[in-house]
Amino acid sequence: MAITVVGSVAFDSIETPAGRRERCLGGAATYFSLAASYFTDVRVIAVVGEDFGRRQEAVFQARNIDTRGIERAAGKSFFWEGSYLDSLNEAKTHITDLNVFASFEPKIPDFYRDSEFLFLANIDPVLQRRVREAMPDVKLVAGDTMNYWIKDHRAALLEVLKGLDILLINDTETKMLAGNNNLVQAARAVMALGPKELVVKHGEYGATLFHGLSPKGESAGSAFRAPAMLLEDVIDPTGAGDSFAGGFFGYLASQPEQSPAAYRRAMFYGSVMGSFTCERFGTERMQKLTREEIDERFNLFRELTHLA
Amino acid sequence: MAITVVGSVAFDSIETPAGRRERCLGGAATYFSLAASYFTDVRVIAVVGEDFGRRQEAVFQARNIDTRGIERAAGKSFFWEGSYLDSLNEAKTHITDLNVFASFEPKIPDFYRDSEFLFLANIDPVLQRRVREAMPDVKLVAGDTMNYWIKDHRAALLEVLKGLDILLINDTETKMLAGNNNLVQAARAVMALGPKELVVKHGEYGATLFHGLSPKGESAGSAFRAPAMLLEDVIDPTGAGDSFAGGFFGYLASQPEQSPAAYRRAMFYGSVMGSFTCERFGTERMQKLTREEIDERFNLFRELTHLA
Repeated sequence: MAITVVGSVAFDSIETPAGRRERCLGGAATYFSLAASYFTDVRVIAVVGEDFGRRQEAVFQARNIDTRGIERAAGKSFFWEGSYLDSLNEAKTHITDLNVFASFEPKIPDFYRDSEFLFLANIDPVLQRRVREAMPDVKLVAGDTMNYWIKDHRAALLEVLKGLDILLINDTETKMLAGNNNLVQAARAVMALGPKELVVKHGEYGATLFHGLSPKGESAGSAFRAPAMLLEDVIDPTGAGDSFAGGFFGYLASQPEQSPAAYRRAMFYGSVMGSFTCERFGTERMQKLTREEIDERFNLFRELTHLA
Repeated sequence: MAITVVGSVAFDSIETPAGRRERCLGGAATYFSLAASYFTDVRVIAVVGEDFGRRQEAVFQARNIDTRGIERAAGKSFFWEGSYLDSLNEAKTHITDLNVFASFEPKIPDFYRDSEFLFLANIDPVLQRRVREAMPDVKLVAGDTMNYWIKDHRAALLEVLKGLDILLINDTETKMLAGNNNLVQAARAVMALGPKELVVKHGEYGATLFHGLSPKGESAGSAFRAPAMLLEDVIDPTGAGDSFAGGFFGYLASQPEQSPAAYRRAMFYGSVMGSFTCERFGTERMQKLTREEIDERFNLFRELTHLA
């Protein structure tokens, strides 16, 4: 089943202990759609500037990603510059130029409307909500957000959460959103805001899927933990979270039924795609994978966590 | 097979967000031996003062732990006071009174000498080495250490590491010992110092077992990740690492063969025992478990991590 994703398509300048890259293709919707494209059809809604040319377009086309919803506007594309010199776990942002993204008004092409899966990547919750409301018939909606929206745009974000089936955020965001430092208590509080499934990403320690936690503690619900790859060399962690989301949601969309077992495998595929992204700068690794490599790593993850 | 453990038997005063306890029974050898006692015979080598009475002795006896190697000395027992008010992940030490431990000279009772397993809990590496050398015929030796010995007693610690089969330490200690911030690279460097197996404890994120990593990167070795319990209420994390070690090594000692599959299950049992310890103050939970409760949680951990 096809996924429509709305989010940023951008240029990133990145510095890590392994080196530096200037203006490589980036953005949450880019990483998400590349990762998901190994599992299912993907359609992107975004806005880019005049600096987005054939070379960038070709990256999407090589993975058969539908870019007809990427609007071309006068001006420059969203630009981000950041570094990971002190810690590979957290980017230090140097520059965020919204450019054409500042006046982004998502338009949903008619030929995207039969998408059964919708992913709201990390953008202004006002825009996330607008897209959600414009696609009322989707079967499953997942989304991401970040500390900035949690702190300063809480009311708008809470409206988005009400319409989400699955929320994917990290430990810090979960605790910040709940105002609670215990992960399980925080997860319970976040799920009371709407999402039926909560995926908490722990960086190098993997991720946890919470399901069916009820607000007041009367249900323990169930949880599932996927590991992260033990990487000897992390080249560039940019986009790892978005690639996780793409692998996770892409796999779910590829399955005839979104059963608990499918969710577990989706957690593994998410972690697999996140780990590949870290192995090269930008989207380099995401552009040139094979399904065989993906499944080989999936099996490594099984080996890493299963008793026998 | 019987385990001999050398380490501290102490009194702890502990403050956590859940409350405060004065002078409860503590010490690494105490937590280790209680946890291991659910799997195999345990014999303790330690020193205590005149404040160690029948009530404390009874805790060991109730678990059939051999205390004939616990020396009674004039003075007071080792005393530690700490709190976890800011973070449950790291204790803030207020008082460390070595007392009788300052002049501890481990003596190994003759009737301990047929122990096939030896655990060197976190004490002065000079003492760890002395005990190791006094028991040359043991089949398997595991040990723990801490940042203090890594930083200020490195030479003595390196001598201990040469004689260890298994080292159990946390993330920070691994990276500090190796002088390397990448976990896999650090693990590789630490294993070049002696231990054939390295267990790195990640607190609430579980633990990783590294096996067969060779020094120069030509062997990827193998790794195994056990989860930690998702605890809604952490009452007191004191002793969780020692309880992990007790569950891990106790289970290994209970097995006819220390196969790779046994190591994997041992990681789970370690994590299980660590999680129980956090649920009550001090050793309260470790004193009153049943093997059924332990195996029930083992199965929960399997459910938490296995695809099907």
